[in-house]
Amino acid sequence: VERELQSVVSGSGGGASVNREAFRQTVFNTLERRLFFIPSFKIYRGVAGLYDYGPPGCAVKSNVLAFWRQHFVLEEDMLEVDCPCVTPEAVLKASGHVEKFTDLMVKDEKMGTCYRADHLLKDFGNEKLEKDLSLSAEKAAELRHLLAVLDDLSAEELGAKIKEYGITAPDTKNPLSDPYPFNLMFQTSIGPSGLIPGYMRPETAQGIFVNFKDLYYYNGNKLPFAAAQIGQAFRNEISPRQGLLRVREFTLAEIEHFVDPQDKSHAKFSEVANLEFLMFPREEQMSGKSAKRIPLGEAVSKGIVNNETLGYFIGRVYLFLTCLGIDKERLRFRQHLANEMAHYAADCWDAEIECSYGWIECVGIADRSAYDLHAHTEKSGVALVAQEKFSEPREVEKLVIAPVKKELGLAFKGSQKNVVEALEAMNEKEAMEMKAALESKGEVEFYVCTLGKNVCIKKNMLLISKEKKKEHQRVFTPSVIEPSFGIGRIIYCLYEHSFYTRPSKAGDEQLNVFRFPPLVAPIKCTVFPLVQNQQYEEVAKVISKLLKVAGISHKIDITGTSIGKRYARTDELGVPFAITVDSTSSVTIRERDSKDQIRVSLDEAASVIKAVTDGQTKWEDVWSSYPHHSSESADD
Amino acid sequence: VERELQSVVSGSGGGASVNREAFRQTVFNTLERRLFFIPSFKIYRGVAGLYDYGPPGCAVKSNVLAFWRQHFVLEEDMLEVDCPCVTPEAVLKASGHVEKFTDLMVKDEKMGTCYRADHLLKDFGNEKLEKDLSLSAEKAAELRHLLAVLDDLSAEELGAKIKEYGITAPDTKNPLSDPYPFNLMFQTSIGPSGLIPGYMRPETAQGIFVNFKDLYYYNGNKLPFAAAQIGQAFRNEISPRQGLLRVREFTLAEIEHFVDPQDKSHAKFSEVANLEFLMFPREEQMSGKSAKRIPLGEAVSKGIVNNETLGYFIGRVYLFLTCLGIDKERLRFRQHLANEMAHYAADCWDAEIECSYGWIECVGIADRSAYDLHAHTEKSGVALVAQEKFSEPREVEKLVIAPVKKELGLAFKGSQKNVVEALEAMNEKEAMEMKAALESKGEVEFYVCTLGKNVCIKKNMLLISKEKKKEHQRVFTPSVIEPSFGIGRIIYCLYEHSFYTRPSKAGDEQLNVFRFPPLVAPIKCTVFPLVQNQQYEEVAKVISKLLKVAGISHKIDITGTSIGKRYARTDELGVPFAITVDSTSSVTIRERDSKDQIRVSLDEAASVIKAVTDGQTKWEDVWSSYPHHSSESADD
Repeated sequence: VERELQSVVSGSGGGASVNREAFRQTVFNTLERRLFFIPSFKIYRGVAGLYDYGPPGCAVKSNVLAFWRQHFVLEEDMLEVDCPCVTPEAVLKASGHVEKFTDLMVKDEKMGTCYRADHLLKDFGNEKLEKDLSLSAEKAAELRHLLAVLDDLSAEELGAKIKEYGITAPDTKNPLSDPYPFNLMFQTSIGPSGLIPGYMRPETAQGIFVNFKDLYYYNGNKLPFAAAQIGQAFRNEISPRQGLLRVREFTLAEIEHFVDPQDKSHAKFSEVANLEFLMFPREEQMSGKSAKRIPLGEAVSKGIVNNETLGYFIGRVYLFLTCLGIDKERLRFRQHLANEMAHYAADCWDAEIECSYGWIECVGIADRSAYDLHAHTEKSGVALVAQEKFSEPREVEKLVIAPVKKELGLAFKGSQKNVVEALEAMNEKEAMEMKAALESKGEVEFYVCTLGKNVCIKKNMLLISKEKKKEHQRVFTPSVIEPSFGIGRIIYCLYEHSFYTRPSKAGDEQLNVFRFPPLVAPIKCTVFPLVQNQQYEEVAKVISKLLKVAGISHKIDITGTSIGKRYARTDELGVPFAITVDSTSSVTIRERDSKDQIRVSLDEAASVIKAVTDGQTKWEDVWSSYPHHSSESADD
Repeated sequence: VERELQSVVSGSGGGASVNREAFRQTVFNTLERRLFFIPSFKIYRGVAGLYDYGPPGCAVKSNVLAFWRQHFVLEEDMLEVDCPCVTPEAVLKASGHVEKFTDLMVKDEKMGTCYRADHLLKDFGNEKLEKDLSLSAEKAAELRHLLAVLDDLSAEELGAKIKEYGITAPDTKNPLSDPYPFNLMFQTSIGPSGLIPGYMRPETAQGIFVNFKDLYYYNGNKLPFAAAQIGQAFRNEISPRQGLLRVREFTLAEIEHFVDPQDKSHAKFSEVANLEFLMFPREEQMSGKSAKRIPLGEAVSKGIVNNETLGYFIGRVYLFLTCLGIDKERLRFRQHLANEMAHYAADCWDAEIECSYGWIECVGIADRSAYDLHAHTEKSGVALVAQEKFSEPREVEKLVIAPVKKELGLAFKGSQKNVVEALEAMNEKEAMEMKAALESKGEVEFYVCTLGKNVCIKKNMLLISKEKKKEHQRVFTPSVIEPSFGIGRIIYCLYEHSFYTRPSKAGDEQLNVFRFPPLVAPIKCTVFPLVQNQQYEEVAKVISKLLKVAGISHKIDITGTSIGKRYARTDELGVPFAITVDSTSSVTIRERDSKDQIRVSLDEAASVIKAVTDGQTKWEDVWSSYPHHSSESADD
């Protein structure tokens, strides 16, 4: 890595951050020049946080999503669904997004410009720490602590800090408002009346949760099963930064794996148990240690990872990312600290990938317990539950609260209903205490919250008992384990991990290369007639037809440019193989990274390319079974 | 077709429309029960016009889109892009959507309920024509005419008709407001300030147009080329009807093929010229004739279809739809009438598919001339143009208007700039008229619109001449030919065209079947152990593994249900092949529609399935090369 950074930055400007910036800029410029991405609506001066995938970027994205479908949906027999982006308010109220999906914002009090409160403090702190040479050790420690806990601060605390440090609007130096929450969902209105509020979904997961009942039925009323969805999600960021990493619209791929909370084992866990990679458990983070290599089986058996199913998905995510070409050394699984996790979550791990912006969360893998299905059950009134049928009935002891309605009616008249509901709502402990009190004293004071007062309950008004019952099934709310993939972030990190430069043959310039594996490469193969000549062009067309039939994406380049320049052009797009037509009977195939070339007959060219691009064969095997070709002229 | 409709509707209730309704209901119920679709947010009582694709529907959609990419993007070397749904207002103002993407709406004056004005008139007209037996021939003709021209009526005309017929709100009989335009775009706001209006895109095309300059460059500054995009589009329908056909969010697949307006030939037209299918030219529609079979080559050479490129895409769309399984007899290409086309369009053809709702537009194929690029050039100030470099310079005669600034300055002082601009803006005809007038009269009255008045132009104030110039290139705005696919509509029509029923073996019930081709089928193959037995289940698992490696989507069904019931269950999902494990050495493969079975060895099962599902082999060939299997027990 460092070597690559160095090769990009000529003259070490000053420390790693300058190198990182320069590396990022080189990658970014290459990506933009070759249309991997395009700032959206560029001719209208664009919109912050919106980017298009240009042709090669779009092909990379298609390849990543196709592999995701193969690796997760097909191999794990998941139920894939496809729900709309437009979502009515009720759904997002139940999920908590209407209330809590917010960032804290401050406004320039004169100009109205908006800033994220935490960003201002972060920038202030970092700048002070970097540039203020007069900063006392004590003050520096205080700032470092502030930066570490920034995510946990309330609006009031952030506001107090902004005041304390005298932070003003960055562009105008005007005073700032107090921080207040801004909801990050794009709001809209459904239908012509203007009366039905809706939002563009901030995640795809809710579409799966609300369909739980149907999907469970579709799966033969059996657990565990997983549903999956790929689709657009939207976050109206206050001030998008970090280029392609923090955007206002992005593609998510999410899995919701439903399990019995009493049994989170996974039938295929043994297939991933021996994997060993960088993990960063809570304890290591708290004690200031760094990530370490732990075999996944050990992490689960020692309880570092909460359960087998969560562990299984961590392993599958590791395989997915590394198959795409993410560098194993710059990928770690970091466990959420207690204060990062929602109160209901059992455990949560992020797949973080290191890039020039630091360690970036690209996949979240969370055991969300029964929270989501509970929330929708409660708000919709539809029970999102599973049943376990017992092979033979089981005897269970059940609390029975039987109000004597006649007595209650006489005593409470119009309020009878409220009293009955409150009595029936007692939990086992409360009921057993009341039973004891009634037996000893004959009556008891009882608070009815819907009446807002105490009433007097007498012994003849209800029967409390424990009865043995035979149950034929257990009804419960499943837990959900959710791996959620930010596809754009994964692709951006992949770009950085795949990028390197190497000197041109003449040594006068640095050439850019993306070392995408064939699985990901936007184009699998280029076809070059060595010189402009009708015979060679005819041969190129024949090969192109064979490649088309084999379903291999490719490009013919018949421009008169030197073959070396044409190779450089496709290396910069990450095209793994090039077929060069230099005779009418045989051609050469060049591999991008080694620049090695073999000679194959015309008829074989397409099938060799097919074998090395769809993973049947490795280049090394092809290299050892065909004659090598070396040509001075072929690679200037 | 009729036979199938009949087989669904027991007892002919009264005419084709009842049959169609019953057929649609049967298909719809099957689709909903098997989760091909799910009304979105169902547990919250749903939202009109929003539907989810459930697991089999989602798989069908994936297959259709993968084939679209193969058939169009890969085979035609198109540049695929992927742009955001959130779109700033400037883009949609330039495209005309902010002003014109509206439907006319009326409101129940007391309740506020909204209706589409044309729908109310349509319902009124149809009901009158169907049920009012006292209707005079004259009145009936008037209503028929109204229904025919409904789309062309202005707000005022629709309002007058609603008044004339005394139409009131359908639910309450309250009076209705005058019709007024309602914009069908979902509006939102970008960023936290609330000051940047945005919309959810109503089509994907604009994302391509605004990127024309970059894409043209990416294509080596050569025409013709095509860009393509698959993505979500949004229309906030006033009152969605027609079930899955008219929805508020849908997937579009659009192609923008850019050509030189002076040369709309297509290099591959000969490949489709011999296709012959139902076409419904403007002339046939106007003269009350019906669609007719015309060879595509003839349609182009006779000028029925405007140009070769448009014709080429019509042919490719025909091949696309029929490969998916759309019935050739219920597919026609209908030319837009003059009043249906935008003023700028050169020609426009819709691929219409007949289903229970009538003939439905599923693909629009329009020659939009240079309209879109012109509009964005004008509004953005960025020239979206192409250049044709001449191999040698060409001599052209050019108008030259040379104002004599000194004289103009003396005469007009502060207004000089306005006058000069107006003079320079004259077209050739105006300029040559002025030249003649100045030569004969010495001066001439000239209207300057930016001043709002006439000024007197004298002979010494400007020189008008025609000069011969050498030009090295021609700069022009390309024309665009746009095939635009409503993916959801195509899929719905495919469901109807693929659905049929057949009696169960016992003859006591009708079984549902979707005859999807393997290309489209949501699952390619099911694996059934004939009876519940560990040995057979092991064999099923081995086959499943082989299928997984071959990338074939499949399902194992180990329930104890009779094999006949299990076949019926998968026929209803359109699964084309079933492997039944009835021994540990060989298995049977059953084809869905013929119900024919062959016997193959265990090792061959997966490869036979692969060959017949990926199109290498046809079932007929497999049928003739393997031993047949007939089993009474296997198909009850």
